[in-house]
Amino acid sequence: MLTSAQRDCFDVVLVSPRNPLNIGAVARAMANFGFTRLSVVAAYEPHWREARSAVGAPELLANARECPSVAEAVAKSTLVLGTGTVTFRKPDQPVVPLPRLAPLVEAELARGGRIAILFGSEKHGLSRDDLSYCHALVEIPTDPRQPSMNLGQAAAVCLYELAQLRTMLAAAGPAPTGSAVDSADLERLASLIEETMLAAHYSPASMQETNRHDLRVLLRRLHLAPLDSRRIFGLFRRILHRLAEKSSR
Amino acid sequence: MLTSAQRDCFDVVLVSPRNPLNIGAVARAMANFGFTRLSVVAAYEPHWREARSAVGAPELLANARECPSVAEAVAKSTLVLGTGTVTFRKPDQPVVPLPRLAPLVEAELARGGRIAILFGSEKHGLSRDDLSYCHALVEIPTDPRQPSMNLGQAAAVCLYELAQLRTMLAAAGPAPTGSAVDSADLERLASLIEETMLAAHYSPASMQETNRHDLRVLLRRLHLAPLDSRRIFGLFRRILHRLAEKSSR
Repeated sequence: MLTSAQRDCFDVVLVSPRNPLNIGAVARAMANFGFTRLSVVAAYEPHWREARSAVGAPELLANARECPSVAEAVAKSTLVLGTGTVTFRKPDQPVVPLPRLAPLVEAELARGGRIAILFGSEKHGLSRDDLSYCHALVEIPTDPRQPSMNLGQAAAVCLYELAQLRTMLAAAGPAPTGSAVDSADLERLASLIEETMLAAHYSPASMQETNRHDLRVLLRRLHLAPLDSRRIFGLFRRILHRLAEKSSR
Repeated sequence: MLTSAQRDCFDVVLVSPRNPLNIGAVARAMANFGFTRLSVVAAYEPHWREARSAVGAPELLANARECPSVAEAVAKSTLVLGTGTVTFRKPDQPVVPLPRLAPLVEAELARGGRIAILFGSEKHGLSRDDLSYCHALVEIPTDPRQPSMNLGQAAAVCLYELAQLRTMLAAAGPAPTGSAVDSADLERLASLIEETMLAAHYSPASMQETNRHDLRVLLRRLHLAPLDSRRIFGLFRRILHRLAEKSSR
């Protein structure tokens, strides 16, 4: 068994879930595989209420965290994993087949990180904006003729695979503590760089949305160490300060 | 991709399923992972009809086989796997954790066998009688505080694991043809031995049920080669013939 501290390193995040039965199914799979931390982003209130009050709903559903945005839900996470099929679009993030996810997650736990796994809505999956908060995309290998999985079943399969890893970790003893850059730090850095870009008139206003997205994806691709992150932050603060001085003269 | 002949080696068998949504969920997971052969034993007719006529139901549901008994559903199978949690009873069959199922199934496919995987009803799982047709019990490693999985989710996790194996097999080329003793042969052998036991007044009539069960389990534990099976069959036919002669004198 994993210690509760180790189990605490995983957050399951449902983004805009619709069907109360599916929310309940995800919660049940979490209970089956020993995960306890559930966050729900932008839930449709009546369905969310229905799911929580269902007979036999696992306790973790009552303790679930409600978040207004993906950014907030993953703020403390150092490795954010998106799920979904990538048949019809080319993703900005590296795609990892679920059966080969173990090394990535083990390395993250070993350096004391926190892992979030995101599931999109039943109808549309994760949006491009949701995915911009992800370091990698986890793909469940499915038949190309029927790639789209039910939310509760996709969650069960992912958590089953993560639970295997759990056993290995437990056998190896508790993870050593370390440090990593969490999503909130990355967001602060992205905001500062964006502000700098604007102050420097880097590109027309119409490009602002696209630049923000690309910047978010880029920062996650870099796998910054905390020291590097702080250095870059310091540098841009300095630049921004200079730019502000210059424009006020 | 597996050839359709290789995919044809797997049968998913639902024993007394109740909830139409769960039947649909199992069928969807099968379609997701490329399995096509579904059998349903003793389905509750209205719910079965509802599941089959559901909007968006995979085609394999329309082609599903309806069987009156487990014996008939697994008649052509040479390796029958039961699923469920074994927390509260000691099973007669060897228990294989799902993550370690691959070698058993690969060996069976390599010798040209056919594999059936059985799922019990939502409420009670597989009965002791259902399990007596199984060579092994597959266990999904779950949290002891919440071991019982939803039917659709349990099927998704099992089929995901089998689909991994599928990839390995596909990479290794088609399985060589061979021969194995199927469940129908084992049943014929068991019936003959039982008849012999009765003819020989082996034990009181009150023991007949128990003996039948133990015999079924025993025969599966032996992993008989076809030649051995035929030899034992021949031997008991001979014995039975002699016993009949003797009693008619």
